[in-house]
Amino acid sequence: MERTPSHPQVSQFNLQQVLEALVDPVRRSIVAQLDATGEDIACGAFDIAVSKSTATHHFKVLREAGLIRQHYVGTSRMNTLRRTEMDEVFPGLLDALTTPQAQGR
Amino acid sequence: MERTPSHPQVSQFNLQQVLEALVDPVRRSIVAQLDATGEDIACGAFDIAVSKSTATHHFKVLREAGLIRQHYVGTSRMNTLRRTEMDEVFPGLLDALTTPQAQGR
Repeated sequence: MERTPSHPQVSQFNLQQVLEALVDPVRRSIVAQLDATGEDIACGAFDIAVSKSTATHHFKVLREAGLIRQHYVGTSRMNTLRRTEMDEVFPGLLDALTTPQAQGR
Repeated sequence: MERTPSHPQVSQFNLQQVLEALVDPVRRSIVAQLDATGEDIACGAFDIAVSKSTATHHFKVLREAGLIRQHYVGTSRMNTLRRTEMDEVFPGLLDALTTPQAQGR
């Protein structure tokens, strides 16, 4: 895997790709955890019950859809929610999916 | 197919099922067309480029997720968007997906 992964620009955000990323409950949980803390989280520090290789796949799908930005700090791959950029292109979408009500359903 | 199809109650709405329904572009288009007209639309009157049997499947998925309500008028199966009920459970979700900006992406 390359050291600095590529990220789509805001102009490349695509609703179909974003929904395909968010339809998976593990990926939705990753987004919700980033949204709840409001801080970067290392790949290994999420509360998700999947193998490391499966998690790596989920992070890749989220990154390629524009939902997260990844960067290294030492040997840790850190994840940032691209909340402002996503809200700019699809206003209300992440709000709707991260309400306690939505997460409880 | 039974004459009066079953519909989930609001208390049964499930985010995973709703997102699985909305991740499909044809189903999203059906929802958007119902939202845009604000009126019931017969199954045969939607602007969708799929076969009748495929369309029937899409309507079933939307109905079972709680996104549409179906009823007969004569021999026509009519579709109603369950907008108010969906907004009550997942506020902002349909708004986010039916903006012109979202549909253009």
